[in-house]
Amino acid sequence: MNTLLLEAHNGVLHITLNRPECRNAMSLEMVKELREVLAQLDSQVRAVVISGAGGHFCAGADVKDLIGAGNQMQALNRAFGTLLQEVEALPQVVIVLLQGAVLGGGFGLACVSDIAIADHKAQFGLPETRLGLLPAQIAPFVVKRIGLTQARRLALTAARFDGVEAERLGVVHFVEHDPQALAQRLDEVLGQVLQCAPGANARTKSLLLASVNEPLGAVLDRGAQWFAEAVTSEEGIEGTQAFVQKRMPRWCE
Amino acid sequence: MNTLLLEAHNGVLHITLNRPECRNAMSLEMVKELREVLAQLDSQVRAVVISGAGGHFCAGADVKDLIGAGNQMQALNRAFGTLLQEVEALPQVVIVLLQGAVLGGGFGLACVSDIAIADHKAQFGLPETRLGLLPAQIAPFVVKRIGLTQARRLALTAARFDGVEAERLGVVHFVEHDPQALAQRLDEVLGQVLQCAPGANARTKSLLLASVNEPLGAVLDRGAQWFAEAVTSEEGIEGTQAFVQKRMPRWCE
Amino acid sequence: MNTLLLEAHNGVLHITLNRPECRNAMSLEMVKELREVLAQLDSQVRAVVISGAGGHFCAGADVKDLIGAGNQMQALNRAFGTLLQEVEALPQVVIVLLQGAVLGGGFGLACVSDIAIADHKAQFGLPETRLGLLPAQIAPFVVKRIGLTQARRLALTAARFDGVEAERLGVVHFVEHDPQALAQRLDEVLGQVLQCAPGANARTKSLLLASVNEPLGAVLDRGAQWFAEAVTSEEGIEGTQAFVQKRMPRWCE
Repeated sequence: MNTLLLEAHNGVLHITLNRPECRNAMSLEMVKELREVLAQLDSQVRAVVISGAGGHFCAGADVKDLIGAGNQMQALNRAFGTLLQEVEALPQVVIVLLQGAVLGGGFGLACVSDIAIADHKAQFGLPETRLGLLPAQIAPFVVKRIGLTQARRLALTAARFDGVEAERLGVVHFVEHDPQALAQRLDEVLGQVLQCAPGANARTKSLLLASVNEPLGAVLDRGAQWFAEAVTSEEGIEGTQAFVQKRMPRWCE
Repeated sequence: MNTLLLEAHNGVLHITLNRPECRNAMSLEMVKELREVLAQLDSQVRAVVISGAGGHFCAGADVKDLIGAGNQMQALNRAFGTLLQEVEALPQVVIVLLQGAVLGGGFGLACVSDIAIADHKAQFGLPETRLGLLPAQIAPFVVKRIGLTQARRLALTAARFDGVEAERLGVVHFVEHDPQALAQRLDEVLGQVLQCAPGANARTKSLLLASVNEPLGAVLDRGAQWFAEAVTSEEGIEGTQAFVQKRMPRWCE
Repeated sequence: MNTLLLEAHNGVLHITLNRPECRNAMSLEMVKELREVLAQLDSQVRAVVISGAGGHFCAGADVKDLIGAGNQMQALNRAFGTLLQEVEALPQVVIVLLQGAVLGGGFGLACVSDIAIADHKAQFGLPETRLGLLPAQIAPFVVKRIGLTQARRLALTAARFDGVEAERLGVVHFVEHDPQALAQRLDEVLGQVLQCAPGANARTKSLLLASVNEPLGAVLDRGAQWFAEAVTSEEGIEGTQAFVQKRMPRWCE
């Protein structure tokens, strides 16, 4: 991988966007490598943590790549949207650690995480329309993240805002005031995630995402089927036995 | 009723979940009895207040009932979802008073209320995935209540949180710091609800719920028809006359 | 125009609802005139600012007009919903300045703005059901603005609330404590909006609104096409060149 650092331990894959010379701008190569990594995740991986090298998360699309794209522009822009769809649909729990620039495409990537932790000084924004461009692949995910009311103000004013405001708007779940607190919060959240059964979490995430698009009755029907399957599954038997026996289930070890 | 206490006065039906020995865990019998009570509500009942006996609202599904369910598991799980659908669709205003445990299915029930009032120390959470199970019938209602962004964190970490946090996340509308303040808030809210015309409230609630699922134009068309009907209805004539005559309309008495 | 004051400068159309003798109640004539003005906007207008004369935004529908409507009631009520749909769909950025009464239909109009700025003492509410009537054309837009959870409480209790609460509920983006601060905030927001390219803002707004109703893939496909078109458009070329040359693009002048 040219644009990513990967490190796996304890069922967690840590992905670092690694183009610090340009604040981890999302190049075409980075989109391609991220999609490759995510397509190859196996069920041993229970959580994915995405952060950026050099004090920034991601400053948005790489403008040089865009200029050189020519008649591939539309397809390449759409490919970034596909990356966001793929991250959103991952069965793993996706956590983002947000520092420095979280702009444009970087903001979009933050919006498809399950849990977002931000530094209070991180800088969020959708600067596209100031350049005569559109946050085209990002806009729908911002609406899904924080609702139409806030998304329209942010997109149509290209406003910048910090981590504290991001938490107030619901972009992120936690805001921390120094690197140590960020690391502690990540540990805490990962600890909680790893106490949840991986299979149960994956299906729960699938039901949550489906709730937005599918008719309620259909989601409840599938939920009931999956619930019945979970109770008699290896995970369900282990989990309920551990509960009765007042011990931790095996997946916590 | 074996699992519920019922008390009606002044157009308000107070339902108390009454299995305090197990923190009002939602047994199959309780689901059945709740559905029976709600199916028999007549138009004299204008509001339904649901609370729990013994300092807790509801600690979730009754595990013993689940274990004994065998091949009825799927149907019984789905029946709880149907209960939630039925509570949500009631023409009456549904108010929940939340103290102590508001977990799993109890959390789901809170999510279909029109107005939720919580004690600051109430304990909310979706513990299912820690047991290898799924909040299968609950997840869609949590998404509808507080949006996908917060729902995914809560479900995938099985996080516990209190009444103050529940208000911040939008699960509840009011958080109070002692039983007296809870009771006063309930009185205040009921007073407001009973000043609204029952028929108008029922149709307004129906339009609000439809707004989430139906195309906007269809909801506005039906709204216009119902508005015209309301103006010439007994309620509408009484309400506008009372307004002109600066007196309270009859439904407030 | 009998019910509106209009003033255009610097690409901004200022519309003042001008029936101060009745707190700018939304008469049939006002609905008609607003729709006429908005239908004739040309692309020179980049933002629309709506406020009210005499210290109030809008106290809701004009009851006298309603009483006289007879069998036109349904059509006239629906026409107000159409006005709200048209305001929402405007390619221009719509800003509302909210003071005094923001009730019923006035509340509905606030809910279709892109950016809402409120005085801390503004009075918001949906009083309809206290009169035996329905907030029929307004309800769906309130749900879209602040979600079902808060909308149902407000509509079913006819609760009044001020600008501070409106900001907390997400009805408005900014709350200010005196007229000077309101005016400064409006200047700031307009300044931001006018730094964004008008064509890019219009298409971004269209994508944001589409995100609520259309399947995600369709919005992303159209977004990619529009993104590619924007890059090679006059605006996109000017914007990216200005960025490289560290100067303001022409649309800011």
